[in-house]
Amino acid sequence: MVTALLLRYQHAAWTLLLMIAGFSEGGKLVVLPMDGSHWLSMRQVVENLSQRGHEVVVVIPQVSWQFGITENYTVKTYPVTYTKEDLDVNLQTYIDAHLAGQPFPFNVLSIYNSSVAIFNLLFSHCKSLFNHKELMQYLKQSDFDALLTDPVALCGALIANYFSLPSVFFMRGLPCNLHYKANRCPDPLSYVPRIFTMNSDYMTFSQRLKNVLIDSAEFFYCNGFYAQSLSFASEVLQRDVTLLDLLSSTSIWLMRYDFVFEYPRPVMPNMVFIGGINCGERKALHEEFESIVNASGEHGFVVFSLGSMVSEIPMKKAKQIAEAFGTIPQTVLWRYTGETPPNLANNTKLIKWLPQNDLLAHPKARAFITHGGSHGIYEGICNGVPMVLMPLFGDQMDNAKRIESRGAGVTLNVLEMTSKDLSDALNAVINDKSYKENIMRLSALHLDRPIHPLDLAVYWVEFVMRHKGAQHLRPAAHDLNWIQYHSLDVIAFLMAVVLVATFISLKCCLFCCRKCFCKKGRVSKSSKSKAE
Amino acid sequence: MVTALLLRYQHAAWTLLLMIAGFSEGGKLVVLPMDGSHWLSMRQVVENLSQRGHEVVVVIPQVSWQFGITENYTVKTYPVTYTKEDLDVNLQTYIDAHLAGQPFPFNVLSIYNSSVAIFNLLFSHCKSLFNHKELMQYLKQSDFDALLTDPVALCGALIANYFSLPSVFFMRGLPCNLHYKANRCPDPLSYVPRIFTMNSDYMTFSQRLKNVLIDSAEFFYCNGFYAQSLSFASEVLQRDVTLLDLLSSTSIWLMRYDFVFEYPRPVMPNMVFIGGINCGERKALHEEFESIVNASGEHGFVVFSLGSMVSEIPMKKAKQIAEAFGTIPQTVLWRYTGETPPNLANNTKLIKWLPQNDLLAHPKARAFITHGGSHGIYEGICNGVPMVLMPLFGDQMDNAKRIESRGAGVTLNVLEMTSKDLSDALNAVINDKSYKENIMRLSALHLDRPIHPLDLAVYWVEFVMRHKGAQHLRPAAHDLNWIQYHSLDVIAFLMAVVLVATFISLKCCLFCCRKCFCKKGRVSKSSKSKAE
Repeated sequence: MVTALLLRYQHAAWTLLLMIAGFSEGGKLVVLPMDGSHWLSMRQVVENLSQRGHEVVVVIPQVSWQFGITENYTVKTYPVTYTKEDLDVNLQTYIDAHLAGQPFPFNVLSIYNSSVAIFNLLFSHCKSLFNHKELMQYLKQSDFDALLTDPVALCGALIANYFSLPSVFFMRGLPCNLHYKANRCPDPLSYVPRIFTMNSDYMTFSQRLKNVLIDSAEFFYCNGFYAQSLSFASEVLQRDVTLLDLLSSTSIWLMRYDFVFEYPRPVMPNMVFIGGINCGERKALHEEFESIVNASGEHGFVVFSLGSMVSEIPMKKAKQIAEAFGTIPQTVLWRYTGETPPNLANNTKLIKWLPQNDLLAHPKARAFITHGGSHGIYEGICNGVPMVLMPLFGDQMDNAKRIESRGAGVTLNVLEMTSKDLSDALNAVINDKSYKENIMRLSALHLDRPIHPLDLAVYWVEFVMRHKGAQHLRPAAHDLNWIQYHSLDVIAFLMAVVLVATFISLKCCLFCCRKCFCKKGRVSKSSKSKAE
Repeated sequence: MVTALLLRYQHAAWTLLLMIAGFSEGGKLVVLPMDGSHWLSMRQVVENLSQRGHEVVVVIPQVSWQFGITENYTVKTYPVTYTKEDLDVNLQTYIDAHLAGQPFPFNVLSIYNSSVAIFNLLFSHCKSLFNHKELMQYLKQSDFDALLTDPVALCGALIANYFSLPSVFFMRGLPCNLHYKANRCPDPLSYVPRIFTMNSDYMTFSQRLKNVLIDSAEFFYCNGFYAQSLSFASEVLQRDVTLLDLLSSTSIWLMRYDFVFEYPRPVMPNMVFIGGINCGERKALHEEFESIVNASGEHGFVVFSLGSMVSEIPMKKAKQIAEAFGTIPQTVLWRYTGETPPNLANNTKLIKWLPQNDLLAHPKARAFITHGGSHGIYEGICNGVPMVLMPLFGDQMDNAKRIESRGAGVTLNVLEMTSKDLSDALNAVINDKSYKENIMRLSALHLDRPIHPLDLAVYWVEFVMRHKGAQHLRPAAHDLNWIQYHSLDVIAFLMAVVLVATFISLKCCLFCCRKCFCKKGRVSKSSKSKAE
């Protein structure tokens, strides 16, 4: 009740607050977003900043999945060397590498290679941007107050360094925990699980061992992911730059998670947590969906989507899934653009696009089958809908683990699952009350926050624009080398002092003993001779 | 301009927001505050919570410096075994230990002893509380939602543990960085200065060495401070408790600082930063002060106070100070209850009590001479008044260092300073523009925050009341032992594996070599024998 009211009025009241205070003083912001699902929630921040009177310029490649021309802000585009098909082929290769079910180490190798390929492709547009003299001249002359970027493809970070612009990073995370390493944030291996380990924060000895081993490997594979980007960055900045160099100069890290979803861990004062930024208010459903939902009766309905980037799966898998849906009494709304599986049951509706948040917010929503992307997961949390998770790639496996470890969902291995596994999982999350109770508890905690994450994100971007950075939040750790940071020089010095002191004490003792014994020896000798 | 508007409307708009959202649902809160200046800002939170419809019960000893009976909330008192004079004598001994100017190590010893005495005295009322059967019965039966306490005297933490109540800690800090240690917050010695070191976050090798040594000593002296309290805690909880046990169970740490004042460092998600909570809106000055301030002319005035706990100093020192004040053109308002120094100049007004915040907020305020208590320092920051700092005890030396290292004030050693030192310092902060610019920059950064610290504090206390704690913010680190936390078992295992692998490889090599050489040997031997 309280949280519902809060959620309903928080954003409105905040806007009112800012209106009264006359808080917004038009500034100039340049935005270098990341394509794909990453753009979905960043667009909200960008639109909000634009509505608040700032001059917002979004710089995007002419070929993309998600970017489009809009009147909500200024868009500047530049030509790139690849086509939309190149993007699609690379993404499909990347997804296939995860779903091929190859044995170890071939699975790891093909995932690694496809990741490097996609990183290189996504970065290649950065070269095109630097080659676009006119646009670069415009960026140079525009005197922006700050730069907002999703740093995963590095181009925004490079532009910020190149033009010495204060920057704000907006993201769910970076590979290899770079977002902690670059921000000098302690990252204890004993309870902070590394990505791809699928560990929770409570680990057995062997899980902690795996965590340490994966962490050691991160250095190598992340340098592999970013090798081309770093070489280009070193070229344009005319100095040898490392990944940490490029990323460490940002002012504020807007992290698209909170500690209802993520495991509590050390953070830094310039990290702002905006998990759930994408959860909007529930809007009325379109007639088409309203009628499906109403017809679902007392059993309600299930929403199934594999996210904005995947709308087809192999027919074999689709048939398995369709079979499972046929066994449950709920209506299923399945976002799917592929060929209709022949065994599709009457209760299952294939739909090209669905208003996911509005459906999940409906009281008849009983479960949410998701690939475990962070946007979808937060919509599940915001609306308190228990989940069945079918992670595919990237951070999705680890996201799924977080929901499962909170008892708010069941994770399935999409490669190995059977039709029965899926129907069992659905029956569990729908009929076992604990899943609903747990997701409602998470929802209540998540929604109980002093400011809506969207307002918080906008606030901190404006903060950086107003103060030309946030230098006061930059820890001195950035200016220490590895040895100094870990106080190894001090420890070595103290050990040397102890050793020298011990050595001198021993020598003194020996000297004293010798003196003593010699004296005794002499005394006894002289007394002996006297006696003689 | 922006910040002024923000500050003016932020609290009002927030209150409006909460009114609209119907956010407050009356709960029951028990408060165990800390006496002295610590109570000043906590009282604001308590009053605010009470105004918001909660049943707030403040449990205090019958003898105190600052507590009083009020109608703003329910007060429950219990008799104690000491008198107000005992409190005063102990405080004076504690202050004298700092000001006596004894040589090392006598100064350290007398400060340590007087600290132990004051800790024991302040904790002794806890025994009285536990002996007060009626009040303990009342606390047991009252079914409180949460407990709010300043944990420095440990009694609130003990009561929370005893009644298994979710708790919120409110404080500037604890001795020995216990507030980080108990919360499992990493605390790198290389750039996080320890209390009493007077280091900044940028340290030379010898300063880092000092930091490491002081940190190593902390374990011993803090156990000394709290020895009696811990023995009593173990008795009532009927188990052996450590300091960290007692403190680590709290849900939220409300920290009375921010990173405009404190050096940026790792923090934990359950730490909420409410520095500047005590800065109120400027109220109109009373006629008496208005006339002094107006008469100060173009030179303006200087405010001098050594805080709520110290209003007298030795006559020798008072004369030195009075002499310095005679040399500056500003009017000086000096909060002082001692004997008037005979050399007091005409520009200096001795006043028993002054409206510090309202005076500092006046445009004619030119400088603020303060002992460096955190409340005073934040009033200086909020109002953008450069400071001359005369730290006396506790965290004041380190607070002063923080302001000085930001170029917003000058620190004087109250024992060694001459009259000229003080007048030089005053002339510097008043006439050298950099001090004013720096304090104005700090002020702008400090005031630019999405929520007023008072509202934030109230919000998080209510959060703990609503959710009966904040278990989701508790890191798994609490359930690891020292070896596990530092992954020492994993490292040992990996080293063992490497050693065994190296050993086996070496053995294999040796075996192969031997085989090889033996064969050769035999071959050459046999060929030799054949040759023979």
